[in-house]
Amino acid sequence: MTTYEIILKKRSGKILTNREIDFLVNGYTTGAIPDYQFSAFLMAVYFQGMNFDETTALTFAMMRSGKIFDLSEIPGLKIDKHSTGGVGDKVSLILAPLVAACGITVPMVSGRGLGHTGGTLDKLESIPGFRTNLTEKEFKYQIKKIGVAMMGQTKELAPADKRIYALRDVTGTVDSVPLIAASIMSKKLAEGIDGLVLDVKTGAGAFMKDFVCAKKLAKVMIEIGKRMGKKVVALITGMEQPLGNMVGNSLEVIESIECLKGNGQPDLMQVLIGLAEEMLMMGSRGKRHEVRSKIENVIKSGAALERFRDIIKAQDGDVRVIDNYKILPQAKFHSRVKSPETGYIQKIDALQIGVLSVELGCGRKTIDDKIDYSAGFIFKKKIGDQVEKGESLVEVIGQDNNKVKFVSKKLLSVFKIGAVKVKPPQLIIDRIF
Amino acid sequence: MTTYEIILKKRSGKILTNREIDFLVNGYTTGAIPDYQFSAFLMAVYFQGMNFDETTALTFAMMRSGKIFDLSEIPGLKIDKHSTGGVGDKVSLILAPLVAACGITVPMVSGRGLGHTGGTLDKLESIPGFRTNLTEKEFKYQIKKIGVAMMGQTKELAPADKRIYALRDVTGTVDSVPLIAASIMSKKLAEGIDGLVLDVKTGAGAFMKDFVCAKKLAKVMIEIGKRMGKKVVALITGMEQPLGNMVGNSLEVIESIECLKGNGQPDLMQVLIGLAEEMLMMGSRGKRHEVRSKIENVIKSGAALERFRDIIKAQDGDVRVIDNYKILPQAKFHSRVKSPETGYIQKIDALQIGVLSVELGCGRKTIDDKIDYSAGFIFKKKIGDQVEKGESLVEVIGQDNNKVKFVSKKLLSVFKIGAVKVKPPQLIIDRIF
Repeated sequence: MTTYEIILKKRSGKILTNREIDFLVNGYTTGAIPDYQFSAFLMAVYFQGMNFDETTALTFAMMRSGKIFDLSEIPGLKIDKHSTGGVGDKVSLILAPLVAACGITVPMVSGRGLGHTGGTLDKLESIPGFRTNLTEKEFKYQIKKIGVAMMGQTKELAPADKRIYALRDVTGTVDSVPLIAASIMSKKLAEGIDGLVLDVKTGAGAFMKDFVCAKKLAKVMIEIGKRMGKKVVALITGMEQPLGNMVGNSLEVIESIECLKGNGQPDLMQVLIGLAEEMLMMGSRGKRHEVRSKIENVIKSGAALERFRDIIKAQDGDVRVIDNYKILPQAKFHSRVKSPETGYIQKIDALQIGVLSVELGCGRKTIDDKIDYSAGFIFKKKIGDQVEKGESLVEVIGQDNNKVKFVSKKLLSVFKIGAVKVKPPQLIIDRIF
Repeated sequence: MTTYEIILKKRSGKILTNREIDFLVNGYTTGAIPDYQFSAFLMAVYFQGMNFDETTALTFAMMRSGKIFDLSEIPGLKIDKHSTGGVGDKVSLILAPLVAACGITVPMVSGRGLGHTGGTLDKLESIPGFRTNLTEKEFKYQIKKIGVAMMGQTKELAPADKRIYALRDVTGTVDSVPLIAASIMSKKLAEGIDGLVLDVKTGAGAFMKDFVCAKKLAKVMIEIGKRMGKKVVALITGMEQPLGNMVGNSLEVIESIECLKGNGQPDLMQVLIGLAEEMLMMGSRGKRHEVRSKIENVIKSGAALERFRDIIKAQDGDVRVIDNYKILPQAKFHSRVKSPETGYIQKIDALQIGVLSVELGCGRKTIDDKIDYSAGFIFKKKIGDQVEKGESLVEVIGQDNNKVKFVSKKLLSVFKIGAVKVKPPQLIIDRIF
């Protein structure tokens, strides 16, 4: 068995054995297999795909490349949520305290912004002092104490994934269903969870533009989870326009807190509650109408907001942010984009919004870029809304006036305005289990 | 324009521009583009292919990565021949002096053994003293003096090809028509030739097992040559069994000299004369029957043999080899493989013969392996021959008795013997121009 033979085997569309996949993942993680062979292998996988058995073997090999957290000493089911990434998708920030307030343990390991999408860690770090680089010990301690913790991937967690992901990122092998599934599931399964709710996004602003691909990805991840004896459910949700009214790190923290205070935008609330219901049904075996009233109660009572305060406090963040948004990095410059005509908003290109948010400083173009936590967009209008000529469509804010001006100019073409009233795009498209 | 974007473009089956291909080849040759990105690109080319324009651009970029020999000061047309590689294919050794003796200038740049196939340079170097590492100056001087020289690829000649070939060799991207065509043609066009005769082999012992692929490769190479204003003709020849009766470096030198002495085996002579006719018709605009008698004359008169003596002398080889084969490295051990039954030879698996010849020491398994120049096979029977039980099928010789014994045992399964008499396989299958 040589790397060369395995590349040829996959290239010709044959099914790899568990041993061959282990050999590749271990060899690549230890450095025995060079980048140039592994990237050729990845490209062969892009073209020839992998079946369930192969994808499961790849996931397990990647998971076993590092440490697997043992949370068995913590009573009850441990449930996490993962989103494949979107624009304005701040659901994790709201969901983790909300579900924990309902009595479910949430060990959440999140990522940073990727491409045109934002990252939970970047958003949390806009809160002064907030630490996401918890050790395993701190993570466990916090979960035991307050039932929830939100951290970044440590060096010990699925290091093979980290290495393989970095290679995929520069060799045009990111958008392959088995590679995406193995990357997500290897990390999630290493967290020590009992169950996982997936938010697989589809549409213009998602990585999976196409519903059929999104469904396929969901099915593969569910199958992998099942083979590990984990409960997995996926919602396929629409990402045609940004979720909620705000995009940007500090802004999304604000919108999340508002949401926990009961002032959430309808679209954001719909996705949030859909995912929260799945987590609660999975974790407590409750019925949908029961868990639904539980969710509404912890928002109304302020218990969910208090749990977010607990998280911020436990992770060294400035808890005053809950009542005073001025604590967050403040933008120096503002610009309003006004509607050139009267009509209805028919489209807001979520991909372009994501790309422009990175341009504005909300994300990184290279690994060394510094984020402008204050920067972002405040949407005044969403798809289906009526707008008068001269009325504000969106406000752009940030610390760099040139960027604010540049992005504002580009934004007009992102909105499509027409005479016909359209319905807002569907949000929860499918439920796969 | 980034490497990443070009990989994605090719991955999605789009046509690359000349600028994009130049960017990749230059970047890879200078080291600006890392191996892992180039290997992902090569695998994308394997799956998506390249059209004529792209393959031509790739060939030109690789050709221009180094020096292009200028042979314009030498009068007359300069014609070379290239074979895609086979087992027992010693045609170049005979063809170069033969065609030169007919008055055509032959600037021949050859390669070493590759996979299961032998290499002209390795064969020539079994002659004591023979130097294939000529400088450009020596190469030109010799061509002027005796009309023919046989050398290896210098560092200056298409260095991009050398680098790309080494990467293809370990990443499972060797057998791609555009990549093979560009590799061959970039070197050949850098030699300063006016015309090229291609021997594209097909069958069990060839790299292109399939006639349709062989024909496609021939057409692509002819098209590239034409776009450079060169004359190119290809013969598609069969490689179902070894060509001639001997396989191995010294042995093939002996068979070549025997051939020049007028004692060539019919199959070897048929391919040799077919290719020689093409070179002469291309170089002298003669008619087929005229060049045919010229070829027969230079063998009969000994002029072709004398030209081989001139080559050996000019390249510091021991010319006594022409009359005394004992000058060549001698095998210490011999073994005869005897037929287990009476019947007709129906098959001799050329690929297996090639693989076993490397096993025996005729070729290298790794770059550091030392060649046993004395080792090889002497075939007593070929496809279509009658054989009695106990009669010799093949003789195995070499300096390592363990290898001779091991390979002899394996050889029986390479011959298929049956009651029905079969015809020898077709040799010249098609002529493409």
